[in-house]
Amino acid sequence: MAVCEGKTFKFNNASIISFASVVGKVESDGPYGDEFDEVVEDNKGGAETWEQAEAQLQSKAFKHALSKANLTPEKTDLIFAGDLLNQCTGSSYGLKEFYIPFLGIYGACSTFAEALLLAGAMVNAGYVDNCGAVTSSHFSSAERQFRFPLNYGGVRTPTAQWTATAAGAAIVAPASKPPYIRAATVGKIQDMGISDLNNMGAAMAGAAYDTLSRHFKHMGTHPESYDLIITGDLGEVGSELLYDLFKRDGIALQKWHKDCGLMLYDREKQDVHAGGSGCGCSASMMCGHFLKRVQSGDLKRILYSATGALMSPTMVQQGGNIPGISHAVEICFN
Amino acid sequence: MAVCEGKTFKFNNASIISFASVVGKVESDGPYGDEFDEVVEDNKGGAETWEQAEAQLQSKAFKHALSKANLTPEKTDLIFAGDLLNQCTGSSYGLKEFYIPFLGIYGACSTFAEALLLAGAMVNAGYVDNCGAVTSSHFSSAERQFRFPLNYGGVRTPTAQWTATAAGAAIVAPASKPPYIRAATVGKIQDMGISDLNNMGAAMAGAAYDTLSRHFKHMGTHPESYDLIITGDLGEVGSELLYDLFKRDGIALQKWHKDCGLMLYDREKQDVHAGGSGCGCSASMMCGHFLKRVQSGDLKRILYSATGALMSPTMVQQGGNIPGISHAVEICFN
Repeated sequence: MAVCEGKTFKFNNASIISFASVVGKVESDGPYGDEFDEVVEDNKGGAETWEQAEAQLQSKAFKHALSKANLTPEKTDLIFAGDLLNQCTGSSYGLKEFYIPFLGIYGACSTFAEALLLAGAMVNAGYVDNCGAVTSSHFSSAERQFRFPLNYGGVRTPTAQWTATAAGAAIVAPASKPPYIRAATVGKIQDMGISDLNNMGAAMAGAAYDTLSRHFKHMGTHPESYDLIITGDLGEVGSELLYDLFKRDGIALQKWHKDCGLMLYDREKQDVHAGGSGCGCSASMMCGHFLKRVQSGDLKRILYSATGALMSPTMVQQGGNIPGISHAVEICFN
Repeated sequence: MAVCEGKTFKFNNASIISFASVVGKVESDGPYGDEFDEVVEDNKGGAETWEQAEAQLQSKAFKHALSKANLTPEKTDLIFAGDLLNQCTGSSYGLKEFYIPFLGIYGACSTFAEALLLAGAMVNAGYVDNCGAVTSSHFSSAERQFRFPLNYGGVRTPTAQWTATAAGAAIVAPASKPPYIRAATVGKIQDMGISDLNNMGAAMAGAAYDTLSRHFKHMGTHPESYDLIITGDLGEVGSELLYDLFKRDGIALQKWHKDCGLMLYDREKQDVHAGGSGCGCSASMMCGHFLKRVQSGDLKRILYSATGALMSPTMVQQGGNIPGISHAVEICFN
């Protein structure tokens, strides 16, 4: 059967002019703890509820990004934002105060890549002079929504991932300074037959494989063309599956691969099982760590393929699988 | 205070080459019942659950649109889709079978306008050769998720709206045939202080006013520049509020205004209170009725500003308001 190839979009006029990240206490205790712009020590950050606390993470991250770009909300043309909360209220509540044209997006934990991709596309095409990309997640709001109430005290399985309490924000604009968004490939929904809410890495590995493979093909590149290939939050289980899939093509992807979910926490000392997850996981690792390294030229060319499990507790309770998706964004120093 | 104006995007190379709609029994009994492409008589449409039935509505509508465009999934470059179900599973489950690059979006009941806007932008910029825009809603899946379980038998308030069981799908491509997407304005999140889950029209009216006003200003147009100004699902309460807001500017908007929520049902005979709502409401009215009239030249220029209540039962239970948003798309015969 003929398979849809889609397109890889190429951009020559989209730069990430600023980026910022805000994380919670557990994330600040991790190996990259001092790279984030702000740490919210208290789980509710002074808000009444976890959901409101998550909205504040987005607001804080976006404010940092605006400030670094010397930009005011009045001069900001557009925001793409999304999160894991029902009806994406982390974004709508977190960003309503800025009163900026807003397009809500949803790609589960792949949302930050979707936001960067669309921001790059809109800026590169000249529709807007600048565009924000913002996402968040919060351990406590996500656990009670997707799995169990925290006070139930359920035991987490070894394959379970830890939803990051974190937000990342970037501003994309036409500018002559790195990091540049040079290309992007939109993911396809992949159903690998996984129906375990605590095994999302497996649900997403096939999607990352498909998107990365198409990106390489369309760009005429190989893994060795990049300094790093970064996935969002495949975790330990999903990363191993991804290596297996590439191994069939004769590619040892592990040589170039980093997974944000495996980096955000110290898995020896922190009880996060198979690694971090959530829209805020790769958003904070990109905005806290990787984009700085591209900005400085330490990394010349990276491929960021965030991964999302398009899960719904309702559908899973009804016997449905968890489809995965992954969107790839190529970010370069030159 | 300076206020963000945003941009109105202008397109010269984006045509809606096909469009289709699928509705439920109640919608087919309404005044436009014979304009839709397919009627699913049974509330579950042969599926096991309402959620799966909603996913099928999207799949069916998209298949009709592909067929009318003589397009196969393999030749389709991109889809924007969204819905009201938690984690947008109406879209991810409904469209996964097509295996087409997919970008999930969320704008509550404004989602179809967001999808058309983004599809138009991506096609007009040349990133893709064609792009789908698909949304759905389902009365039964929405009621139990947002308000009460249906078998609870709660009495609906007079301001309550009826979530449409419907889906709409359009394919946008560069082509020299109407309807053309000529311009679009992204909405800002507006919080009017409404916190009643059964009074969404009021929550959305301010958003429609803001977006329409900015669109007129940026385009140098007035309401009389259009044959019709179509809102998504303000219903009776929200439409009256919208007229009040425009009246302050000396504009009698009611002369040009149609609201899909007030059209989809026969409100004399059908017990839908303040009108229809849901992502499928304006999607089915646009794809079933209005786009045909632009295609034939009966309508030369319309402005479609779908409206969404960015509500979450969790946030409302926590005392939060329901912010509204509205995205405008200008669709023309020439």
